[in-house]
Amino acid sequence: MKKTMRILLSENEMPMKWYNIQADMPNKMLPPLHPGTKQPIEPDDLSPLFPMELIKQEVSQERWIDIPEEVADVYKLFRPSPLHRAYQLEKLLDTPAKIYYKNESVSPSGSHKTNTAIPQAFYNKKEGVKRITTETGAGQWGSALSFATNHFGIDLKVFMVRVSFNQKPYRKIMMNTWNADVVASPSNSTESGRGVLAVDPDSSGSLGIAISEAIEMAAQDDNTKYSLGSVLNHVLMHQTIIGLETIKQFEKTDDYPDIVIASFGGGSNFAGISFPFIHKNISEGKKTRFIAVEPVSCPKLTRGKFMYDFGDNVGLTPLLPMFSLGHNFVPASIHAGGLRYHGAGAIVSQLLKDKIIEANAVEQLECFEAGVLFARCEGIIPAPETCHAIAQVIREAKKAKVEGVEKTILFNFSGHGYFDMASYGQYFNGELSNYSISDDEIMKSISKQEEVVLF
Amino acid sequence: MKKTMRILLSENEMPMKWYNIQADMPNKMLPPLHPGTKQPIEPDDLSPLFPMELIKQEVSQERWIDIPEEVADVYKLFRPSPLHRAYQLEKLLDTPAKIYYKNESVSPSGSHKTNTAIPQAFYNKKEGVKRITTETGAGQWGSALSFATNHFGIDLKVFMVRVSFNQKPYRKIMMNTWNADVVASPSNSTESGRGVLAVDPDSSGSLGIAISEAIEMAAQDDNTKYSLGSVLNHVLMHQTIIGLETIKQFEKTDDYPDIVIASFGGGSNFAGISFPFIHKNISEGKKTRFIAVEPVSCPKLTRGKFMYDFGDNVGLTPLLPMFSLGHNFVPASIHAGGLRYHGAGAIVSQLLKDKIIEANAVEQLECFEAGVLFARCEGIIPAPETCHAIAQVIREAKKAKVEGVEKTILFNFSGHGYFDMASYGQYFNGELSNYSISDDEIMKSISKQEEVVLF
Repeated sequence: MKKTMRILLSENEMPMKWYNIQADMPNKMLPPLHPGTKQPIEPDDLSPLFPMELIKQEVSQERWIDIPEEVADVYKLFRPSPLHRAYQLEKLLDTPAKIYYKNESVSPSGSHKTNTAIPQAFYNKKEGVKRITTETGAGQWGSALSFATNHFGIDLKVFMVRVSFNQKPYRKIMMNTWNADVVASPSNSTESGRGVLAVDPDSSGSLGIAISEAIEMAAQDDNTKYSLGSVLNHVLMHQTIIGLETIKQFEKTDDYPDIVIASFGGGSNFAGISFPFIHKNISEGKKTRFIAVEPVSCPKLTRGKFMYDFGDNVGLTPLLPMFSLGHNFVPASIHAGGLRYHGAGAIVSQLLKDKIIEANAVEQLECFEAGVLFARCEGIIPAPETCHAIAQVIREAKKAKVEGVEKTILFNFSGHGYFDMASYGQYFNGELSNYSISDDEIMKSISKQEEVVLF
Repeated sequence: MKKTMRILLSENEMPMKWYNIQADMPNKMLPPLHPGTKQPIEPDDLSPLFPMELIKQEVSQERWIDIPEEVADVYKLFRPSPLHRAYQLEKLLDTPAKIYYKNESVSPSGSHKTNTAIPQAFYNKKEGVKRITTETGAGQWGSALSFATNHFGIDLKVFMVRVSFNQKPYRKIMMNTWNADVVASPSNSTESGRGVLAVDPDSSGSLGIAISEAIEMAAQDDNTKYSLGSVLNHVLMHQTIIGLETIKQFEKTDDYPDIVIASFGGGSNFAGISFPFIHKNISEGKKTRFIAVEPVSCPKLTRGKFMYDFGDNVGLTPLLPMFSLGHNFVPASIHAGGLRYHGAGAIVSQLLKDKIIEANAVEQLECFEAGVLFARCEGIIPAPETCHAIAQVIREAKKAKVEGVEKTILFNFSGHGYFDMASYGQYFNGELSNYSISDDEIMKSISKQEEVVLF
């Protein structure tokens, strides 16, 4: 047959620069504010938490940033990742749309998170950092960073949200395999954790609490820094290798995406695949649409407010200009743990405000239905987070059929679901449900913030 | 950097023929015998169990057998698979050896088993089969076949060894995702199963019992056939795409393997990587060595006898000329479930008898130690089965260091360990042990057979 299922790049075709969209934004993002003074933060304010090179990247206005050789060498354990054409899915949907997916599940820890874990560990190592702290929810970020810190010989302490710690022991063992020290959060190791436990000894934890714990521990020790797996500018930038590779892969076909789709938690897998194509829109007048897909139960992009808010529960982070549901928002216990975060990265928030990107929310059951359909057609079983993108892809493909238009749809297959089979089991047993959330609930959560709502 | 980590092939470089080593064996394998008459079986004897095309492949003496386009199309969802150079592992071992691994973990179900599941499902479909029965232990075979039968629209009934059914619910859910009907074996669905349960209602099952159940059910229904994931000639042949690709990949380097290593259960992943290189030895005078690696606790190759034996416990299969520990041998509960089988495929057994291949046995703890080391160096976490190959690779690499010889070592990375993290957890907790087995125990198990021991 003549159809090409997978478009591959050789190692010497791997991009050696990340793309920094800050150089091209029509409206720059607003500055992060110091949580105490409410004044724009200076690079030095962040130095207790991050190595200087990452702080520089966070604020850089350079369009292209070199990928160090040491980072590229580790990327090459699994990169460039394949771009697949989903012929089977197209056939089943009987759609004129062409569906492509970039397969980020091929990394050691099974998701795109490794793309930023590696450079973050590298820059920390280079600046003499001995230990990193971080948080993890579903475990994809914690395992990606474990792999990377182990590679560069840095100790890692992971605060894993207690409910996941109990439900997903295999993610914990994976992190242990890569030498990480994993504790359930809230823990007794930090004041933030002890504070929560004092009020509720049985607290099942949250990502916001775990972030507070990790930051607190990093801030107290000169040899320890903190690392975040999404939201921040440098994190999103590291992910752009996804889209940059995809552009090269499309150059080997006759196609170009009309729509780019990715699931949305803090913004990193969405940014990774879409920012380089946004650059194409800006620099070459392309007309690609970009759709970020979030859960109906955590609708910061579609129903949140654009405002200055904290990244964590306790309020230790700088105030970021973000679409948010309020930093004390507690999302329903959906299985896409990676999407259960109250806020969106500042750059993505600005792009949404400026209507350069779009957002949509989908229900949990529609996501699992889409994931099962995908697994049956294409083989790989998607992570629940990734199912959100697939659900949107199916919607667009059906729309293309109704309209009789041959669209090219690209989505980011951000991770596999091999550590999420319990949730598929619950889905098959009819034990999962959708979650609605009222405007009142959202307004109540947002209005608790004392910060300025920008519009 | 100039080092190439992964050698990739494009889809149009994928081999379109399997290699049938029966054409080149210096001594042909002895014929399988009918369990009743003890006479060589005829193709028709097998037709209740297998479609005619697979029976023809089982006895074919043709060197090359075409891969049907419909099969190639499904292979291309994940094939050609990458050949990796394990630079990090080499560096850690400080060895002059060059270590390469063929990565078969990239298939939908995570192991090489998919390579034969797809053609088996295809030929059954082509001949109008409506349902297939099979057995699975650790679950790698059952999930591979589930993926394939779902693709071609055939029903699948999987008899899963009860101890695995209980310990590995996620493998079961994976099979359900691909529409398979999975029951714990021994079950009440067959006479074989009921017979075992009558004696021991709490039986935890064995691969031999599960095979008996699957065969019994297939034999009773004209529209139902049986499928086996290893041992048989056609199964081993389907796996040769692994080695054929690897040869093409080595042609893109300056290297060629001095040693080929693979773990050994029934012989399929070992055959897959080694047979095409054995062909090179025979046809081009290459001098590659081939090492099959089995667990010390199930040492059919290193301590079994070459004899006619059954493939299952009850005695429903033809008698096969194989290295065996006796078909009622019950191996210790090691975590490499895929290697807990009493016998070796007939072709591989003949090759071992003829000293064309070698065998070695390794202990469980050495395997996990090797697996953890590998995961820390190369990223991917290996299945416990695959760890056996890695343990042997490390031995050879250390030997190369002592001898100061720059050998090229190739091994088959047969599958990932994402569904085996519980066993890694037990390893880290010091809960695993080695298992020795006395000559007496082995002789007792072997002498129970009434069949002719050939030497």
